[in-house]
Formats: sequence, structure tokens, C-alpha cells
Amino acid sequence: MSNARDYIREGAEIYRRSFAIIRSEADLSRFSGAAERVVVRMIHACGMTDLPRDVELSPDFAEAAEEALKRGAPILCDAKMVANGITRSRLPADNAVICTLDDPRVPAMAAELGNTRSAAAMELWRKHLEGSLLVVGNAPTALFHLLDMLDAGAPKPAAVIGIPVGFIGAAESKDALARDGRVPYLVVHGRRGGSAMAAAAVNALANPIE
Amino acid sequence: MSNARDYIREGAEIYRRSFAIIRSEADLSRFSGAAERVVVRMIHACGMTDLPRDVELSPDFAEAAEEALKRGAPILCDAKMVANGITRSRLPADNAVICTLDDPRVPAMAAELGNTRSAAAMELWRKHLEGSLLVVGNAPTALFHLLDMLDAGAPKPAAVIGIPVGFIGAAESKDALARDGRVPYLVVHGRRGGSAMAAAAVNALANPIE
Repeated sequence: MSNARDYIREGAEIYRRSFAIIRSEADLSRFSGAAERVVVRMIHACGMTDLPRDVELSPDFAEAAEEALKRGAPILCDAKMVANGITRSRLPADNAVICTLDDPRVPAMAAELGNTRSAAAMELWRKHLEGSLLVVGNAPTALFHLLDMLDAGAPKPAAVIGIPVGFIGAAESKDALARDGRVPYLVVHGRRGGSAMAAAAVNALANPIE
Repeated sequence: MSNARDYIREGAEIYRRSFAIIRSEADLSRFSGAAERVVVRMIHACGMTDLPRDVELSPDFAEAAEEALKRGAPILCDAKMVANGITRSRLPADNAVICTLDDPRVPAMAAELGNTRSAAAMELWRKHLEGSLLVVGNAPTALFHLLDMLDAGAPKPAAVIGIPVGFIGAAESKDALARDGRVPYLVVHGRRGGSAMAAAAVNALANPIE
């Protein structure tokens, strides 16, 4: 095996140096404690140190999400990529990570609901919603549908990570979540977002170790 | 069920409008055919229409990758998030999607190799490498290690998607792949990248349907 190329091969050292670069370049002055760790890890997931300008979280978000995880709350994910990005060994209470998108009932439910599969899949979360950590990293329709479900009296999650990505409904759904205010929230305003950032936020909340 | 909120609920319409916005805003003049579809879908995955300025692909990349997929080449992924982002129903030949990161042999191999688990996991790809579509969406060390393996005589993939994200080695590993030139390649220069973009590139290559 040739080892001719010169690059850092040690995982812990790669993390340490990455997080040091992020903290030296990014303006994190609006964040502290667990919220700061969340933002740093989201930057790490996307490679963009200007992310903080688009981040908004309610003052109660970090504590509500951390407490939910510690008491074993399930983590409800709109996409398999989000679920797969959550590092199970970081979870404080062997929390269930649930994604219902592939449930065989979903296509028929989507047709009946007149909405996307991502939104229909949320209907299968109802029995897990109360006190959960809810994570939307992909579909704006899922975030909009959550708000519709809350309007209709659905149980409230402990906290919502709303970071769908894209061009149609993403910015609007995140604005709607932040303006709604019924549930502690974390959003990345605008078009940016995605599964990796969403999973990174969960990983930061689950465990203070960087 | 309240349907009070006004948002687009039809998946196909969301795709159509998203791709129209991307094509109206992004400078795609350097790309055509399958390469253009790849860049559009990568933009769709990250929400950033300035992405094309960082995209570089070899002139033979799109055709080599499409042909590999059509003849049933395996898709080798450095991360489970990449593997999970590939839409199986789009694949032209029920192609195998392989991620060896969780193989129980990997931690010991990483210790012996003195490299990350992502790099060590690539050693388990050797028998699949020849003619494969290789996708690195997460770990710069995996991309560097691929080049070391090729130096040492490993079989050549048909094409490589090299889009690791981050602050340590990401930009350098993508530069190294592009400068190497032994294998048709697609990279996103700089720090940006990630599993979602990498999977989006595969999904665009697998099927011309948008």
C-alpha cells in the first residue's frame, strides 16, 4: 500500500481541526451552550461558515430538545437520509429513530390526503408525536402538514428541527414554523437545509462530545 | 383535517417548478445533455444556484457513468446516507448499491491501515472496483485512499463522483482527483459537497426522467 499522499488520516484529529476552523471563521456570537454546538455541527455538515446568518431557534429549543432526548423521546424523521445520518451511539437513551416514509400504507394515504408521501407519512407519527423530537430535513410539505395537524389538535412534539431544502415551499414552510411558535423550533431560513444538516443538529443535541 | 395552509402538495408539480427555477437562475452554459441534468439535480439537492461555478467534470464523465449504470455496474458509496439517497426505482439495471462502512472487519482494518473507517471500508470494495460507479459524498480520506489504491495497481472504476464535504482535506482531495485524470470524474471544488448532492448526481445519471 502506497502512503505517498500527505493528508490527515486520524478521524478525531480531522474533527478537532474542522471544528477549530469553523469557530475561527463563523460568527457564532448569537449562540451559546448547546445551541452553539448545534450550529457548529450543522456548519460541519455543509462546509459553509456563513450558515449562522440563516439560523433561527427559539430560546427554549436547545434545552427542550436535549431534555426530550435524555428522557428517551423518539426521533421522528421525514427522510431515510436523516434517520441514517443520526449516530446511534451518541443517543443518550437508545432513542427510537422512526421514519415511516416506506410504510406500505403511505402511497394510498398520500392519494387520499392529496399531498406528498412525505406529508402522508406524518399521519403515521400521530401516536409518537407527544413529546417527540421531530426532524424535517427534506420535505417542506411535511413541515406544512405538521402545522396543519397541530391546528387540528394533534399532540405536540417537544421540539421541531425544520430544515427542508429547496425551491418550492422550503423557505415558506420554515418561516411558517418560526412564526407559529407553538413548539420550540430550529430552522435554517431560505433555500438551504437538508438531511445532513438536520442529522447533524440531532447529533449535537444528543451528546456534548465533539 | 384542516387544509387551511396554501402550498403546493403535488410531488410532480413541486419537481417541475423547482427545476424550472433552477434553470432560470443558474448559469448552466458550460454543461449539456446528461451533465446538465446532473448539475441541475445537484442544485436541487442543496438549494444553491451558484453551485455550477464549483462543478468540474471530465468530458468523458457523464457518458462513462451512464454506460456503467446501464450495463449493471455496482454503485460503491462511502456513506450510508449516500446509499439511502439513491432512488432504487430509477436504476436502469437493478444495480447493486454497496456501502461497506458497517462491515464488522472495518474498525480493525482502519487501525491496521492507520486511516479512517471510511478509507478502510474501501479496501472491501476491491473485488467490485473494476468498471464500478464510485461515489464519495462524505469522507475526503476515502477519496485520497482511492488514489493511493489506484497508484498501487487497484482495478479502475468506470467513473468517480467525488463530492466530500468539509474543512479538512475535502477541497484538496477533490483537486487531487481532478488533477489525477486516470478515471472519468465529477467534483464540486471547495468545501461544499455531501451525501445529498452525491446521491442526486447518481439519480440524474441513472434515469433521464426529471
